[in-house]
Amino acid sequence: MLVVMQEGATEAQIQAVIDRLVALGFAVHRSTGVVHTILGGIGPAAHFDPTEFAVMEGVKEAHRIMSPYKLASRHFRPEGTRVRLGELEIGGPAVVVMAGPCSVESREQVMAAAERVARAGARVLRGGAFKPRTSPHSFQGLGEEGLRYLREAADRYGLLAVSEVMDSSQIPLVAAYADILQVGARNMQNYALLRELGAQNKPVLLKRGLSATVEEWLLAAEYVMNEGNYHVILCERGIRTFETYTRNTVDISAIPVVKKLSHLPILADPSHGTGRRDMVLPVARAAVAAGADGLLIEVHPEPDRALSDGAQSLRPDQFEELMGQLRMIAPAVGRTL
Amino acid sequence: MLVVMQEGATEAQIQAVIDRLVALGFAVHRSTGVVHTILGGIGPAAHFDPTEFAVMEGVKEAHRIMSPYKLASRHFRPEGTRVRLGELEIGGPAVVVMAGPCSVESREQVMAAAERVARAGARVLRGGAFKPRTSPHSFQGLGEEGLRYLREAADRYGLLAVSEVMDSSQIPLVAAYADILQVGARNMQNYALLRELGAQNKPVLLKRGLSATVEEWLLAAEYVMNEGNYHVILCERGIRTFETYTRNTVDISAIPVVKKLSHLPILADPSHGTGRRDMVLPVARAAVAAGADGLLIEVHPEPDRALSDGAQSLRPDQFEELMGQLRMIAPAVGRTL
Amino acid sequence: MLVVMQEGATEAQIQAVIDRLVALGFAVHRSTGVVHTILGGIGPAAHFDPTEFAVMEGVKEAHRIMSPYKLASRHFRPEGTRVRLGELEIGGPAVVVMAGPCSVESREQVMAAAERVARAGARVLRGGAFKPRTSPHSFQGLGEEGLRYLREAADRYGLLAVSEVMDSSQIPLVAAYADILQVGARNMQNYALLRELGAQNKPVLLKRGLSATVEEWLLAAEYVMNEGNYHVILCERGIRTFETYTRNTVDISAIPVVKKLSHLPILADPSHGTGRRDMVLPVARAAVAAGADGLLIEVHPEPDRALSDGAQSLRPDQFEELMGQLRMIAPAVGRTL
Amino acid sequence: MLVVMQEGATEAQIQAVIDRLVALGFAVHRSTGVVHTILGGIGPAAHFDPTEFAVMEGVKEAHRIMSPYKLASRHFRPEGTRVRLGELEIGGPAVVVMAGPCSVESREQVMAAAERVARAGARVLRGGAFKPRTSPHSFQGLGEEGLRYLREAADRYGLLAVSEVMDSSQIPLVAAYADILQVGARNMQNYALLRELGAQNKPVLLKRGLSATVEEWLLAAEYVMNEGNYHVILCERGIRTFETYTRNTVDISAIPVVKKLSHLPILADPSHGTGRRDMVLPVARAAVAAGADGLLIEVHPEPDRALSDGAQSLRPDQFEELMGQLRMIAPAVGRTL
Repeated sequence: MLVVMQEGATEAQIQAVIDRLVALGFAVHRSTGVVHTILGGIGPAAHFDPTEFAVMEGVKEAHRIMSPYKLASRHFRPEGTRVRLGELEIGGPAVVVMAGPCSVESREQVMAAAERVARAGARVLRGGAFKPRTSPHSFQGLGEEGLRYLREAADRYGLLAVSEVMDSSQIPLVAAYADILQVGARNMQNYALLRELGAQNKPVLLKRGLSATVEEWLLAAEYVMNEGNYHVILCERGIRTFETYTRNTVDISAIPVVKKLSHLPILADPSHGTGRRDMVLPVARAAVAAGADGLLIEVHPEPDRALSDGAQSLRPDQFEELMGQLRMIAPAVGRTL
Repeated sequence: MLVVMQEGATEAQIQAVIDRLVALGFAVHRSTGVVHTILGGIGPAAHFDPTEFAVMEGVKEAHRIMSPYKLASRHFRPEGTRVRLGELEIGGPAVVVMAGPCSVESREQVMAAAERVARAGARVLRGGAFKPRTSPHSFQGLGEEGLRYLREAADRYGLLAVSEVMDSSQIPLVAAYADILQVGARNMQNYALLRELGAQNKPVLLKRGLSATVEEWLLAAEYVMNEGNYHVILCERGIRTFETYTRNTVDISAIPVVKKLSHLPILADPSHGTGRRDMVLPVARAAVAAGADGLLIEVHPEPDRALSDGAQSLRPDQFEELMGQLRMIAPAVGRTL
Repeated sequence: MLVVMQEGATEAQIQAVIDRLVALGFAVHRSTGVVHTILGGIGPAAHFDPTEFAVMEGVKEAHRIMSPYKLASRHFRPEGTRVRLGELEIGGPAVVVMAGPCSVESREQVMAAAERVARAGARVLRGGAFKPRTSPHSFQGLGEEGLRYLREAADRYGLLAVSEVMDSSQIPLVAAYADILQVGARNMQNYALLRELGAQNKPVLLKRGLSATVEEWLLAAEYVMNEGNYHVILCERGIRTFETYTRNTVDISAIPVVKKLSHLPILADPSHGTGRRDMVLPVARAAVAAGADGLLIEVHPEPDRALSDGAQSLRPDQFEELMGQLRMIAPAVGRTL
Repeated sequence: MLVVMQEGATEAQIQAVIDRLVALGFAVHRSTGVVHTILGGIGPAAHFDPTEFAVMEGVKEAHRIMSPYKLASRHFRPEGTRVRLGELEIGGPAVVVMAGPCSVESREQVMAAAERVARAGARVLRGGAFKPRTSPHSFQGLGEEGLRYLREAADRYGLLAVSEVMDSSQIPLVAAYADILQVGARNMQNYALLRELGAQNKPVLLKRGLSATVEEWLLAAEYVMNEGNYHVILCERGIRTFETYTRNTVDISAIPVVKKLSHLPILADPSHGTGRRDMVLPVARAAVAAGADGLLIEVHPEPDRALSDGAQSLRPDQFEELMGQLRMIAPAVGRTL
């Protein structure tokens, strides 16, 4: 913690800041400059809001100088984390593609999708059974029936399965069917849910919140890890900006930034990231070129009939085209597919 | 729904769009211009994503032309909603001030806060028992013990009580103690929670999500109302922008915009909106001048010792100063306090 | 400047940072903690990019600890600046309203507008002769002819005149007719223009850029002041965010933030800030309640026929209603109108 | 133009909207639905603000249905534009790399940079002679002397030269030395400058504004093209968002979006886009993978001594590494380098 006092700050004001730093457990270091007194708080990073100092009397500026996450930081495991599920490794040399429909709509639909994505080279089948929909009047998912179909389709085609958990009460049910538990962007700061997932022994795929900084995202991962579950996979899925042509704006540099700051694997979801089928291929290629450990891609046997997110779902032939392109890009960045 | 075809779109492409509109239940209206064919879909607003059309072959642009919320729209109840709790009315002529600590930290603390805010003119006591904290290492709230203190303090000083529900599993507990159930910004799109709250008979205070448009916010209200609970109170608490001097950016025009689009009462929370004690007073005055039906203000007997959000909490004497200022502003906009 | 070294940073890496700090003119202060070495650079604020340190080998984090503007800072003139133009004082106890059409379209139009806004209590007449338009196919302004009409109308009705300068080549012309030279949001970082304006002896009305932080805005003011012209008036006119119902998002807390950080007067422009006539009144009231020193309001005798920005222009009767409301609000915050 | 009337809109209100549409030159088409009347305006896209309709009495919603740019639209030249400069072609099969220092600081510096970037495969030398700096106290560029060095270095190493024009008065000077005239992000809506550049016969490199939508950016290109200069090269350089770890957020999907909407070539500038040397390589790879026609890269012989933007400048050896990586990526997307 670093606090810069205003010109002419009184000794009493300086002392009040020192007292507060000491109360938070910092060793305090005082530098008296020609114009400004600067107080440095050194020690184990306490948990506090730096603004608390910024609004104290006589204070000019206050900065937190240490990142507030520990378990999720690169320093904690410099070699990087590989999440292993049987033979599959996420965060290793191979780029892992997870694909499938946004929602499980019927047994036929998820079977058809699974067959095509498996044949094209996907390793994990995605499909939602509980859907967070902006409007209460929209299709909300098939629930357990959907999970059953997802599991059956994954098993038949040799895939693993990932599905979203929207509420802590749904964890046992989803965990009974899926291999990876997904946290959606809208729930990235649902701390009750994160904590419960930290007590599970299944990997958690944690999507970035729509307006979350990378630091807040890593703190959300820290919530899960803090309960003992270190198998967290991050997923960049676009942030909200003023640009409306695409539904969200994929923050492509978040991929190398996360690689630098954290040891956790990171995927990209160009389907939600762009919201438009016609933008999925170029952005998927870009994500792999930027160093992503994998992709999450929506594929629907008949996107024009999809009950949710049809606009961003690829047709199976488009997915095959994408996989063909990725087979060119991955080796160019030293990865396999 | 309105779809503009590209120049030179083929008859087959046009027909495909017409078929999809019909499948969604629209009556389709076709206008052939010199350059572009325009297809209008008229009828009961179906629930769909307009981008679905934007990515179809031969389509230039697609626009949804009807707002997707109904129960929350001004048209549903043009005279406006007044939420009544005993003698208190939210959305009536009086500006209602809700105040108290961010978190309930101890019986003494909440009692001291309640005494001071009641004396200064607040009508509702706020205080969190479960705290959504960005870091898992921060204080997480007292749970039921905190709710008990909150209730006791409210009762002793003739106040109502509002407290946040973070997860649907907490509803029965919080509802046993609080008069108003608050949904935090991070949970604005936690649909499982919203639906459960729709089945309660207590008013819901719904904060705007950090990156939610007004339309998405009204759709979140629609989730609650759709289950039968029409007592929804909205609360503008700042959105995320590139400006970092304040923690969030209070969207002051959201107040008159909500008044125009919806019949629901709207409050403002300048404490979270600015994140800085020294900005709470001017922004609170501004919110009332813009037409807010009330305010949510953090007050702590000793902000410098607060376990959460101390930087944005007013001292009791500052809260009294604020109430004095509001007594000048409210009549200037035809309201009482 | 404060640089936090990574755990295990080498002595050579630390020395490289020290050398760079010294080269920039800092006195360097080194603190060796249990885990991290922290280097503080103290001295006259040099001009540099803190990221330069952030990307050096062995560096964990780097923070600039001193604001980079001096002349615009509150500390430079703690009592605040009052810009005087004859009897008019901007930044004094009176709230100053500047009003008139977006563009000068004809002699009749600006005369009609001037008469009505003067009668209602405005003190300055606004009107653009050169218009920055998003499309090259839109009306671009009357040029010198427009300036002549503006001056004539202002003189006839006892008003001062403000008009926008879009390029440094236009300064002599606009300065020949207007009392205040306006810099539009799109030109806030047009440094060639700012520098030229710094050499003028007329006040400069500097609008905030669409995506400028308060710090960048004050640095733009510093450009003007650095050339010797200290008569800078700031104007908050909305920033770009994800919300699209209003054209921009008025950052209401920027008003008290500027008051705290700077001595310069600050106005608000709710016409551009909201882009919608139906939102101008509540946001104008809010700005005055938040402490604005004045307002910039678009008024057109016949908004439905305006050649630019008709959607956000008030009719004269609406402007009169606004002035009536401001006469209630201003005294409530200790101001006159 | 499409206007949806409110339920219960009066015939007079409907007629007023029709009259305004007719006045703007639209053929009006009226659809009377069960609930809403919808008015469609068809015809040559007039230039107007759709909000003008949104604020009329009785109107519920208003949408512009035709994009406001023409010359910049893909439809205008479906095969795409190739900007040719001697043997160099921008927008053709080869990815064109432009590299060099942010500012020309000395003859030695630009010579050293030119030698290294030419040898590594760059085709165009970049270097600023006039620098837009956020602070007036920072280095502002060498002016004509810098342009002379740039030209000399480019000629010696067989490169073309690109340099920024900050003000229309600088055009003759910069055009006398550089082959491509660059418009910086801060000037993207400096219409006086754009118009002057439209009268030149040299290609214009137009950077995207920090908070400009793709539509606004294409409209800025339209300004240049409208004067007769069709040689416009677009450059994505990051937009402003809430994320602060990188200086800006590269909008990677803007590359395929521009390719779809426009015929103009598009480059990416990962140096300004990320503001951090350690993020330039992955983002540069991503841009090429997404379909960019070229890159703009800052390279400095000694970044730690750079007078501007050192933090984002590559060392020559890092640039060579980048070119090596691009030689792998480009063929994977069917391009040469």
